[in-house]
Amino acid sequence: MSERVYSGCTAATMAGDTTYGLIEDAAIVTSAGRIVWVGRNRDLPGWCAHIPNIGLGGALVTPALIDCHTHLVFGGDRSKEFAMRLSGATYEEIARAGGGIRSTVGATRSASDDELLAGALRRVDDLLADGVAVIEVKSGYGLTIEDEMRMLRVARRIEQHRKVRIRTTWLAAHALPSEYADRADDYVADVTIEGLKRAHQEGLVDAVDGFCEGIGFTPQQMRRVFEAARELGLPVKLHAEQLSDLKGAVLASEFGALSADHLEYLAREDAHHLARSGTVAVLLPGAYFALRETKLPPVEALREHGVRMAVATDANPGSSPLSSLRLAMGMACTQFRLTPEEALAGATRNAAAALGLEKDYGTIELGKRTELAVWDAPGPDFLSYWLGGDLLRGRIIHGEFHER
Amino acid sequence: MSERVYSGCTAATMAGDTTYGLIEDAAIVTSAGRIVWVGRNRDLPGWCAHIPNIGLGGALVTPALIDCHTHLVFGGDRSKEFAMRLSGATYEEIARAGGGIRSTVGATRSASDDELLAGALRRVDDLLADGVAVIEVKSGYGLTIEDEMRMLRVARRIEQHRKVRIRTTWLAAHALPSEYADRADDYVADVTIEGLKRAHQEGLVDAVDGFCEGIGFTPQQMRRVFEAARELGLPVKLHAEQLSDLKGAVLASEFGALSADHLEYLAREDAHHLARSGTVAVLLPGAYFALRETKLPPVEALREHGVRMAVATDANPGSSPLSSLRLAMGMACTQFRLTPEEALAGATRNAAAALGLEKDYGTIELGKRTELAVWDAPGPDFLSYWLGGDLLRGRIIHGEFHER
Ligand SMILES: [Zn+2]
Ligand SMILES: [Zn+2]
Repeated sequence: MSERVYSGCTAATMAGDTTYGLIEDAAIVTSAGRIVWVGRNRDLPGWCAHIPNIGLGGALVTPALIDCHTHLVFGGDRSKEFAMRLSGATYEEIARAGGGIRSTVGATRSASDDELLAGALRRVDDLLADGVAVIEVKSGYGLTIEDEMRMLRVARRIEQHRKVRIRTTWLAAHALPSEYADRADDYVADVTIEGLKRAHQEGLVDAVDGFCEGIGFTPQQMRRVFEAARELGLPVKLHAEQLSDLKGAVLASEFGALSADHLEYLAREDAHHLARSGTVAVLLPGAYFALRETKLPPVEALREHGVRMAVATDANPGSSPLSSLRLAMGMACTQFRLTPEEALAGATRNAAAALGLEKDYGTIELGKRTELAVWDAPGPDFLSYWLGGDLLRGRIIHGEFHER
Repeated sequence: MSERVYSGCTAATMAGDTTYGLIEDAAIVTSAGRIVWVGRNRDLPGWCAHIPNIGLGGALVTPALIDCHTHLVFGGDRSKEFAMRLSGATYEEIARAGGGIRSTVGATRSASDDELLAGALRRVDDLLADGVAVIEVKSGYGLTIEDEMRMLRVARRIEQHRKVRIRTTWLAAHALPSEYADRADDYVADVTIEGLKRAHQEGLVDAVDGFCEGIGFTPQQMRRVFEAARELGLPVKLHAEQLSDLKGAVLASEFGALSADHLEYLAREDAHHLARSGTVAVLLPGAYFALRETKLPPVEALREHGVRMAVATDANPGSSPLSSLRLAMGMACTQFRLTPEEALAGATRNAAAALGLEKDYGTIELGKRTELAVWDAPGPDFLSYWLGGDLLRGRIIHGEFHER
């Protein structure tokens, strides 16, 4: 991997104590895919003189974005269900017409690997257009051991087709398949935990997740899944407090979870649990928007306790049909009152933490991987402020510039 | 202009009585930029045999989109103001820091024509990426006769740089400039009406608009502007009932306005006025979103009375920093409960009506201009359902296919 100096840019390093860690007229030096120097261009050390210097023409540079919560491998299309709902169809009518998560499970099970991959790549491309370099992908629409593993194999294959790092999450505890109706405990034992062991053996699992909710799995069931993950040495995360307060975030904290996600119904007094365990609060404003939720996550309490907040798309065909991380950032600002700086930290530094990748990703700092987003924007506030449009000039991946 | 058959597509014609006016396996024949035949491919008449046939590979074809309400010519950048607001700055602090609409007026006045054009073209390109072929552009950040005229001259120049049709709207009654503080009536006479005459003389005005609101202009003032427009033979439209119910829509109807725009505070019992005058209700969900409005426009009443509803971006640096019409459609569905079909009609057929262009644009029908959007989407519902991403394969402009 060659050496490069990137200069003629404003760098929002997301490191240090200043707003955005902003460096005007910055230079970033990369070697073998790592940042070996970053600072003011005028302070560039002498040993950089021989390194090819690439001017970025006044662009804004940020850490490459990280989408730390997606369900972007799935089969089928649920746009008709969306239309039915808006035409006044009841839940039952939609279910009878084959809608709901079960339609995605059916379509995912019957899709070929290549079909799943092709669909996923489209959504990956959408994210790359927003300067994303790392994407977390969950299973959860297979709901059999084999189909859950297949989803994660497809997710891993994305890396062979696009310049992106994929992190896979075992989410067999996403929904109860009809064949296990009224036997959730059996499903947890037979599929969620047994499958986890097999998927882990095949190296398919970077983290373990669950949907802890009245319409999902109980905290007791999730505890069993987390205990199995702990035995395998795998980190955990949890869909928690999206629709009600089951104290999922407290459970997640007890297991030192990487993240607790959604959190609209998190009690203010539980924020300190997340702080103590260093668990990242992943906010998902796309789902809040699409579900017309009105209960806001307790952002003030999270701030007060110093809980790190991430922002992700939650890209999925049901509750968050969204494949723009920049739009998620904008929604997090307008809906959740995050500042644009918090939103950018949420899609870089804190998103890296939510994936256990903070040593390598998420800031522009010495020793980090050289994964950067290069923007045509007047400043970092603009990334969350303007909705829609195409602001990305290119991505720097493993030290190499790739134009849009 | 040459003849073409476009085949191998699903056409959402937005004409006729069926949902979307959908034609499966459709063919569309164009000659000299007009649609000369449209129907099932198997019914293609013999006289089309000699015409070059372009297969669209199963794409979805809709009328090209129309953004019938934008303020996309402006100077400056207000992303810092957005950040200040989210950091808890008061209205006064933002005003002291030079924020608010006055900052845009100042930046617009001091920008060169070329700077204004360059900024506008970026936003135009964003819209073209959503399959847009017609864009309405309002003045309203100059607030002197010369600067208002300059904005519309810049708007007209867009057509020389992009394949798009621009409709210009005189919106000098947008805000009161500081030099006219407490002299709104004088401003209306001296600038709004005097300037309108001059701008019309120069051929710069397709329609006349105003911001009828407590913080804008009174219905009495708008009546004077509308009377001037009527004398010049120019159609009118109005920013009405966005923040309160001043009966702007009733006034607009009285003048047979092309459209009344925003309408969150429209009284249900006033919907019939719009129906009677054929005035289009232009819904602007981007502003509703960005302002965190909670009062919904009376969509049910508009439907009951058969008022045509359009959807537009309202692209502007203050209350709707949005340059994706497809996102506006999605927001209209989720926030305002429009069906995806209503949203697409709102960005095609009814948007054309809001600009007085329904004879030429907005449906795929015999005699209309051949301005089409070609999508990579499983069906027309998908356009409003999925947020973000790039669904456009290309635009057909004046009968010619242009790839993205
Ligand atoms: Zn999720
Ligand atoms: Zn407007």
